[in-house]
Amino acid sequence: MVTQEATQNQTKQAWEKDKAHIIHPYANFEKFAEEGSVIYAEGHQHWIYDADGNRYLDGIAGLWCVNAGHGREDIAATMAEQAKKMAYYNTFEDASSIPASELAAELARLSPGSLNHVFFGTGGSMANDTAIKMAHYYFNLKGMPKKKKVISRDLAYHGSTFLAHTLTGIASTQIGFDLVKDLVHYVSAPYTYRRPEGMDEAQFCDFLIQELEEKIIALNPEEVACFIAEPILGAGGVLVPPKGYHKRSWELCKKYDILYISDEVVTAFGRLGHMVTSKDMFEVEPDMLVMAKGISSGYIPLGATMVSDEIYEVISQPKKANPYFSHGFTYSGHALACAVGLKNIQILEEEGFCQHVQQWGPYFEQQLKTLEDLPIVGDIRGSHYMLCIENVANKATKEGFGDEVAIAKRIYHHAKNRGLIIRPIGPLNVLSPPLTYDKAAIDETVDILRSSIKATMDDLVRENIWNI
Amino acid sequence: MVTQEATQNQTKQAWEKDKAHIIHPYANFEKFAEEGSVIYAEGHQHWIYDADGNRYLDGIAGLWCVNAGHGREDIAATMAEQAKKMAYYNTFEDASSIPASELAAELARLSPGSLNHVFFGTGGSMANDTAIKMAHYYFNLKGMPKKKKVISRDLAYHGSTFLAHTLTGIASTQIGFDLVKDLVHYVSAPYTYRRPEGMDEAQFCDFLIQELEEKIIALNPEEVACFIAEPILGAGGVLVPPKGYHKRSWELCKKYDILYISDEVVTAFGRLGHMVTSKDMFEVEPDMLVMAKGISSGYIPLGATMVSDEIYEVISQPKKANPYFSHGFTYSGHALACAVGLKNIQILEEEGFCQHVQQWGPYFEQQLKTLEDLPIVGDIRGSHYMLCIENVANKATKEGFGDEVAIAKRIYHHAKNRGLIIRPIGPLNVLSPPLTYDKAAIDETVDILRSSIKATMDDLVRENIWNI
Repeated sequence: MVTQEATQNQTKQAWEKDKAHIIHPYANFEKFAEEGSVIYAEGHQHWIYDADGNRYLDGIAGLWCVNAGHGREDIAATMAEQAKKMAYYNTFEDASSIPASELAAELARLSPGSLNHVFFGTGGSMANDTAIKMAHYYFNLKGMPKKKKVISRDLAYHGSTFLAHTLTGIASTQIGFDLVKDLVHYVSAPYTYRRPEGMDEAQFCDFLIQELEEKIIALNPEEVACFIAEPILGAGGVLVPPKGYHKRSWELCKKYDILYISDEVVTAFGRLGHMVTSKDMFEVEPDMLVMAKGISSGYIPLGATMVSDEIYEVISQPKKANPYFSHGFTYSGHALACAVGLKNIQILEEEGFCQHVQQWGPYFEQQLKTLEDLPIVGDIRGSHYMLCIENVANKATKEGFGDEVAIAKRIYHHAKNRGLIIRPIGPLNVLSPPLTYDKAAIDETVDILRSSIKATMDDLVRENIWNI
Repeated sequence: MVTQEATQNQTKQAWEKDKAHIIHPYANFEKFAEEGSVIYAEGHQHWIYDADGNRYLDGIAGLWCVNAGHGREDIAATMAEQAKKMAYYNTFEDASSIPASELAAELARLSPGSLNHVFFGTGGSMANDTAIKMAHYYFNLKGMPKKKKVISRDLAYHGSTFLAHTLTGIASTQIGFDLVKDLVHYVSAPYTYRRPEGMDEAQFCDFLIQELEEKIIALNPEEVACFIAEPILGAGGVLVPPKGYHKRSWELCKKYDILYISDEVVTAFGRLGHMVTSKDMFEVEPDMLVMAKGISSGYIPLGATMVSDEIYEVISQPKKANPYFSHGFTYSGHALACAVGLKNIQILEEEGFCQHVQQWGPYFEQQLKTLEDLPIVGDIRGSHYMLCIENVANKATKEGFGDEVAIAKRIYHHAKNRGLIIRPIGPLNVLSPPLTYDKAAIDETVDILRSSIKATMDDLVRENIWNI
């Protein structure tokens, strides 16, 4: 009893300190002062425990990232060993470490085409920020200083630095914030479920590709530096583009001498059954490839911007005046982070996580699709261990619930009470579990989702908000 | 012999992989293809070892950051323990962890004034980027959307994201890169050694303050959001401003309703003998305070943007429409990183590192000043464990060597051959050792510097580049 009381006290103190002192990412200040935060304390594989000892299926892998699962003793041992040896030395100019050099070689091995060069950072925002800076630098050195504009997409998510936030095409995130002016231009999201009336998928693909080409021409190809795209849009709604979309976008980029940047922060490292998806799944050989999240399974902040031989040749030209590549972060190539990245890649490969996801991904998709019979389930989409439910008030018209209904948040609460964490984003419930997710976890997830959606519908009816 | 050969092979392979695959921060592409990198492999306290087993005094603490010293078993144990328990869970919206909440409370305790709220990130660039985004958000919510301009200073260093690079006033770093347009405006660096002819320090301070006020007025105070300043400029040259400069700058900011952002990425956590310096050493109570580096002693990427009660009250106002604070990083409040930060603060406090630096800092400064008798030593400056030598060709005129002489790089190489790592920046040699540096390390450092500078002068004479 004393122990339990001590734990409860620690939890209460943590809850109070959190509320008094932490500004949370995407804090909801409508509720925070009253409700504060849930304190999570432990994790094991695809299970997570709050500080009161309640256990949940972690249906979102921390935040799309704990691919190898929580609480791994082998990664803990790697960390302790490298920390005792040398956690950190800078990698500026002429310094390096064994883990940094080995991880760089591994990332070059895993990346398609000639993506043989890595600039390290600490996460996806920084890696995307670096990619755009590098694109500008590249065209400046090539004597094409007008080639600067960036094309991104509505509903794209690329991070939260001033620049990465500007790349992000989710309009609601931009309210209240200032962003970079006149740099980033957006084309339509490949939102297949909500494509224009009367188009089939192939026609929708033609429409998107035509729009992209018209945008390039309108902006002037001589002034467009790069196009940035997630293979499957993540936080924007797990949007799977129509077949052929990526290959054709990439071909347009080649046609107009525009760099293609593939943001694989979410999709790489096994979530879709491949270590890197751009080429293997989407027939694209990007000029830059951005990695984070699964690269370290979230055990330590780590990100990477991979760059092609062609870009490297230009930026690495010796220049007598100002010979320095004046870009870099203290923790670029952090030795301990790189050691964790190496260990994580070894685990993902040796334990066959890509094969596991290839085996169970289709089952997961198929089981989730059984929820389509529920009246508010409008769309179920995604691929392998990156899935999403879009909730609607009317299936026939695809009309959504009003924001004030907070439909996905309601389902999230019911699911959490039943021992499953999913991510509510607008009208969506997102699933992106650790790759340790097995048949039992998939079945339990789908069962909990069914009863949570049903319970939510009951609430809506009871509250006179909605009826079948 | 086999072991030695194996080690040599691993070192050679690491060197080759590094050269083939890593794009280094501040790479010098004049030399990199030929020389590649030094592979560092181990560290203990203020010693660092390359992969061939050569030992060096780490005169720069990794990169101003390994304050508690290399290879600490207690930090390694904390890491392993937290990794096994829960390395990561997101802290978005309504989620938190015990280490994140406890570190937040600790940072609030250490910060002056009402800096009670923290937004976590993974390093200094991101923390400064967040500070500016937050300043804009704050004034937008206050209904003052014109208040957006940022005042920074020549030779300021604030990081390397697109926005943080723009805050950085070191002109040479900006060559070849595109930066944010029309947002950041610069005033003169408080470069006391190179102040205008005929001014004493007090007059120089008047000059700087007058210039800042004129800049504010010229930009229009209604359009200026914030002023950002390092207490002692770091990478820009370890510039110690004239007495009273910070207090008077801060008072100007108060006068014109401009937020004062103190970038303590380098100066906090003991380097100057205080956990936080803004108030204790410089009589400033900033509206935001930026921390990184020493916050984790470099063992893991971690940064923090501290925010005043007043700012928090504005940004945390409940807003029915779009209630979310749409800014945040996957690794904001990373549980393992926060556990390391907590352990590091405990170590710094319990082992009395601030007292140690207060005791030995003045001795270090005094011993370093004994080098002033050398003909090329123009200035020795800094404070406590943040020091710098400025090398000049002519002491009387303060004329520098040409860039092509690479004077500081020459001294760096001689020092490295003698077992000491210092940081060459332009004509400067910078010292920022782990706070474990003791009398023996200080004495050895100063001895090696003397003989390295002498050897460099001999080289210059032999090569007919310079003569006394």
